[in-house]
Amino acid sequence: MTRGALPGVVETVFLAGSGRIDRAIRATGALAPEPPDKAADRYLMSRSIAPELVTAADIMEYDLDSVPVDPRGRATYLERFIHGEIYRIRPDVRAIVHNHSPSVIPFGVTGAQLRPLYHMSAFLWPGVPVFEIRSAGGPGTDMLIRNPALGQALARTLGAGPVALMRGHGAVVVAGNLPEAVFRSVYTEINARLQAQAMALGGPVTYLDPEEAKKAQASLAGTIPRPRELWKRKALAAGSK
Amino acid sequence: MTRGALPGVVETVFLAGSGRIDRAIRATGALAPEPPDKAADRYLMSRSIAPELVTAADIMEYDLDSVPVDPRGRATYLERFIHGEIYRIRPDVRAIVHNHSPSVIPFGVTGAQLRPLYHMSAFLWPGVPVFEIRSAGGPGTDMLIRNPALGQALARTLGAGPVALMRGHGAVVVAGNLPEAVFRSVYTEINARLQAQAMALGGPVTYLDPEEAKKAQASLAGTIPRPRELWKRKALAAGSK
Amino acid sequence: MTRGALPGVVETVFLAGSGRIDRAIRATGALAPEPPDKAADRYLMSRSIAPELVTAADIMEYDLDSVPVDPRGRATYLERFIHGEIYRIRPDVRAIVHNHSPSVIPFGVTGAQLRPLYHMSAFLWPGVPVFEIRSAGGPGTDMLIRNPALGQALARTLGAGPVALMRGHGAVVVAGNLPEAVFRSVYTEINARLQAQAMALGGPVTYLDPEEAKKAQASLAGTIPRPRELWKRKALAAGSK
Amino acid sequence: MTRGALPGVVETVFLAGSGRIDRAIRATGALAPEPPDKAADRYLMSRSIAPELVTAADIMEYDLDSVPVDPRGRATYLERFIHGEIYRIRPDVRAIVHNHSPSVIPFGVTGAQLRPLYHMSAFLWPGVPVFEIRSAGGPGTDMLIRNPALGQALARTLGAGPVALMRGHGAVVVAGNLPEAVFRSVYTEINARLQAQAMALGGPVTYLDPEEAKKAQASLAGTIPRPRELWKRKALAAGSK
Repeated sequence: MTRGALPGVVETVFLAGSGRIDRAIRATGALAPEPPDKAADRYLMSRSIAPELVTAADIMEYDLDSVPVDPRGRATYLERFIHGEIYRIRPDVRAIVHNHSPSVIPFGVTGAQLRPLYHMSAFLWPGVPVFEIRSAGGPGTDMLIRNPALGQALARTLGAGPVALMRGHGAVVVAGNLPEAVFRSVYTEINARLQAQAMALGGPVTYLDPEEAKKAQASLAGTIPRPRELWKRKALAAGSK
Repeated sequence: MTRGALPGVVETVFLAGSGRIDRAIRATGALAPEPPDKAADRYLMSRSIAPELVTAADIMEYDLDSVPVDPRGRATYLERFIHGEIYRIRPDVRAIVHNHSPSVIPFGVTGAQLRPLYHMSAFLWPGVPVFEIRSAGGPGTDMLIRNPALGQALARTLGAGPVALMRGHGAVVVAGNLPEAVFRSVYTEINARLQAQAMALGGPVTYLDPEEAKKAQASLAGTIPRPRELWKRKALAAGSK
Repeated sequence: MTRGALPGVVETVFLAGSGRIDRAIRATGALAPEPPDKAADRYLMSRSIAPELVTAADIMEYDLDSVPVDPRGRATYLERFIHGEIYRIRPDVRAIVHNHSPSVIPFGVTGAQLRPLYHMSAFLWPGVPVFEIRSAGGPGTDMLIRNPALGQALARTLGAGPVALMRGHGAVVVAGNLPEAVFRSVYTEINARLQAQAMALGGPVTYLDPEEAKKAQASLAGTIPRPRELWKRKALAAGSK
Repeated sequence: MTRGALPGVVETVFLAGSGRIDRAIRATGALAPEPPDKAADRYLMSRSIAPELVTAADIMEYDLDSVPVDPRGRATYLERFIHGEIYRIRPDVRAIVHNHSPSVIPFGVTGAQLRPLYHMSAFLWPGVPVFEIRSAGGPGTDMLIRNPALGQALARTLGAGPVALMRGHGAVVVAGNLPEAVFRSVYTEINARLQAQAMALGGPVTYLDPEEAKKAQASLAGTIPRPRELWKRKALAAGSK
């Protein structure tokens, strides 16, 4: 039984600007392992490589201490502890995306609270905490989640929620399966952009009430698979080029 | 006699950012039914599917109660009541686009009034009301127009106008034919973006006077078909790939 | 002897967002008539058609009253008087672009003055006046330059300068040849975007001094042809598709 | 022994908007000379040409006075003194990018200080000075670094740092090798964009502490080569078209 996502995929594409979100989705769709039947003490992650080059041979298996089961000389991600430590305390989580999603970075470095302003980002209703690595690792870290202690501190900040921002770094997004994790990454980014625009218009912003948000999230859950067939076709088409 | 548009098409593409507006237009152009001669008690809408995958076999016919005439097991959009209830009270409307057009979302959640600031968006002159679902459905809806009563409330908010914003959700755009509905969707988005920029420059913004706007709208009506031949060629080219 | 540009080309592409500026340039490069040896009493403009579909057979010749010399049933642009009336009083002008360049629209509807903030837009140093059609055509125009009188009023507002904004409409950009007119259209747009960003940072903005700007403009004049070979290759490549 | 980069490549692509950053990277990757073993008194730069057209035959060699060693009639960049004079006083530098990166222009013309707000731009920790050409060249320059004296003044402003902004012009970015110089150009642009967004949210912005930044920079150094294989594949694929 293995859980896992491909954490690098979304990250790189987001960095290049919002115009390329669908490439991230395509790449992810091509490589996504089917979510397993239940929580497990293993997880999957690609070796350290440009995400667009990932193939099945690059997918590595880790235990919850983030030790590779069968490394075969493949380079591991320094920040794999993000994954291992969240999986350890969140049996409900089957997919984790760590990204540097651009529009959320400003929320991570200011006091502005990220909140859901429309139904597509309703899953943000539990609140989006900000992880301050100085609290966990002292004033002189390299900003990276490079050991189990930092991973555990980040996992505690995330708590039972869907998203945590990492000050001066990025975000971590979790979900019960990979399509949902990609969906949440995309709409966390879009919500951050739209919220900044709404704040700039002046006056109070009406966010979703928790009750509205919970119901909207439940209703939308059924539509997340809708784009999957499209992603698959695109992935197959891209693969044949 | 049947009226109808392909509501999902514009929505998805808008979400991915402004760089892809023309893909929405192309897809719509490929599938647009010719506007019928007069108002009718039937309307067309694709089954619930990723818009880029829509083919003729996915187009379903509904009556004004939004009941599919010949479902053949195809999944329907939960929010089809947006279409049925607007068509019911607006015999002049032949095409409806429901979208989550990004730049209009912030206007829907703040007190800022969307107003036409240039001739391309002159059609906005009757004003753009904001539909607050809490007024119609109480404090705990799932934000979706999932029944006839909510559709009727939204249709009443729209009134005789071209566009209504939906707080925390998106917008609905209506027109006398499909190219005009796509045109209005595109320029509502662009006007929102430019208006936010103008407001950020500071000082008063000069909007179109109603008289200017009515005349500009009449003059531009003749140019809306101009891009149609281009859209058709693109649709044919895309179809042959 | 004939002067002229393809006014529709840049317009359409600008509307779709900044990511597609180079498509405008490519289309223009493909169709640009060589600048004639001296000012003339004729000018060229495509018939009213989606710019991407323009071929040589669509290019029409007009006299300075904006009457087509040999119409052959081809539809003319309603706003051709922009071209005829500017050419009439500006013998130095050989190419005119009328566009709805998005980032300049907000400057046209507020009191904010567009000014050159870097060397690429140094040509803006004479100042960028705003044409208020209410002054020339009264409070109830349709915003379009649809007759000689409005064209003359716009030409007077432009004066000897390179660019005039049109309130609630767009801009007109003139130059001594077509590549320069395209260059100026592109960098007027970029300057507007960057100036709005600089103003948002707060504090005074340092613009180019007129002396700096004149010298920078002279120095850059030699580099405008630099991308031309690239545009030609792209146009040829696109044409062979 | 020769040092050098392709200064025009990144510049042009940045101007067209953030959506095309990877084209810059691809073009650069295709043509990048391997970093030499040690500092040298020669440097490489393409002749003055549209960057996308550069081939090996366009690469010219210069001495540190920016005199071409073997011109063969090829046009030189007017601003080559940026390169020669920085190489002269910075033996650690092996690659220089001069660009007009859009989001940094506003920082160059206002008092706003560019500072690293996340780990990807940690290399900015030594501070980003602004070169005011009026101080070095008087009030009436053409804004260009067109002689050795201006190149020397710019090099002094840069000092031992990684980036200097040029007021009303652009930026200069230096590094120990070409991939790092491209990396720094990209993330200087992204940092500027995100910092402007963070400032607009209001309230204080938490930047990286120098200690954090130094450590993050050291940790990230190992990941800069990660995208290289991808760039190479893309460059080869583009070359075969």
